[in-house]
Amino acid sequence: MRFRLTLEYDGANYSGWQLQLGQDSIQARIEAALAQLFNQPVRIYGSGRTDAGVHARGQVAAFTAPRAIEATDLRRALNALLPPDIAVIDASLVADDFDPRRAARSRVYEYRILNRELRSAFAYRCAWLVREPLDISLMQEAATKFVGEHDFAAFRTLGSDEKTTIRRVMVSEWRREDDDTLVYRVEATAFLRHMVRTMVALMAEVGRSRLPSDSVPALIESRDRAKAPAMAPACGLFLMDVRY
Amino acid sequence: MRFRLTLEYDGANYSGWQLQLGQDSIQARIEAALAQLFNQPVRIYGSGRTDAGVHARGQVAAFTAPRAIEATDLRRALNALLPPDIAVIDASLVADDFDPRRAARSRVYEYRILNRELRSAFAYRCAWLVREPLDISLMQEAATKFVGEHDFAAFRTLGSDEKTTIRRVMVSEWRREDDDTLVYRVEATAFLRHMVRTMVALMAEVGRSRLPSDSVPALIESRDRAKAPAMAPACGLFLMDVRY
Repeated sequence: MRFRLTLEYDGANYSGWQLQLGQDSIQARIEAALAQLFNQPVRIYGSGRTDAGVHARGQVAAFTAPRAIEATDLRRALNALLPPDIAVIDASLVADDFDPRRAARSRVYEYRILNRELRSAFAYRCAWLVREPLDISLMQEAATKFVGEHDFAAFRTLGSDEKTTIRRVMVSEWRREDDDTLVYRVEATAFLRHMVRTMVALMAEVGRSRLPSDSVPALIESRDRAKAPAMAPACGLFLMDVRY
Repeated sequence: MRFRLTLEYDGANYSGWQLQLGQDSIQARIEAALAQLFNQPVRIYGSGRTDAGVHARGQVAAFTAPRAIEATDLRRALNALLPPDIAVIDASLVADDFDPRRAARSRVYEYRILNRELRSAFAYRCAWLVREPLDISLMQEAATKFVGEHDFAAFRTLGSDEKTTIRRVMVSEWRREDDDTLVYRVEATAFLRHMVRTMVALMAEVGRSRLPSDSVPALIESRDRAKAPAMAPACGLFLMDVRY
């Protein structure tokens, strides 16, 4: 029997989703919990990688259980075995051939910015502190220019080995969550590595009025990573949802 | 010149406010930053201790600066020197004899409960997870019974050396912050050690209907710590404000 897990994690203490020799990854922690539960090694597959320090509120992963177990018991058992900063928020039976990466129709990310002069002893784990005032209306104007099908070659990390750099963005919008927190929400068929963090860095430059909002189409058209600003830090990024 | 600092800290990684040999305390971290800034040892005095794991959004402390400095420069310099989970949110000049503990008229604490079956990979650092449903109206009924001047002997940790266990509570109320978060706010002239966490543990028993709401006056009257439930965990407790 095959299970789909929906996972929440605070990425601050991990090297990212993906197994890496000698590193503490989310995948390694979940496989360790599964191995403890089933008394044998179990491989789990994610919908995609998240980088070191990136968080998730709705990562999806799947594995084939070596013996029968109720979904609710599975969820409870894993939550008892996993560290406090990784939680299973849902477990359900899926078809034997369910592949969480290939089957995904789209992914939703959010990026949080704390926009004030004073740093926060709490928000630093899950928001990028930007001290200069940001104009959210300029950033929203820039955000709309990402919607549609575009070649995001300028927004990927060099060395990525994707076959194509064309992606379709369905949602791209900023909202103000409270006085000093700005949240960007973006949904696309899929994302290139570091794509959201590079998009956010560019829009922050627009919000600071260092760049005009038509820098977005200009950078897309250039297809040149060297023209993009340094990406925003990992701590602000959350994988919110994977849609099937 | 003497300064008053208002401090915010995530207490999860510290042994509490107070200096303790061989322990990593908030006070030790602030004194280390002050020593770096002034090139000599500087002692700082808090409005009161917070225990290991307890957080603050408005702890107040004071120190005498060995040389002149602008309050804004002091705040910026300390925030650059302190670890990310401790922040100075305000610095101001005060009278040379300002004693943050004796001068305080009252303290305000909040205690956060996450009331749902599923644990959270984010909230675990700053809320107590209570899985059984809690009836907030029963807890509010119990909370009102703390208001006024009472002998809190039953709510202190044995071995505390306060001269009197009588305290006056001005505010004691529960609110629902979202679907599954309950927040208790309490203001009193001063608190005994572990007093808020013992009050919260008792009210949680009332909220689960394991005890009637008049357990509050009964326990106050008993003056017997042995009759009180085990205190609620430190992670949910925040020192919000010290009033002068």
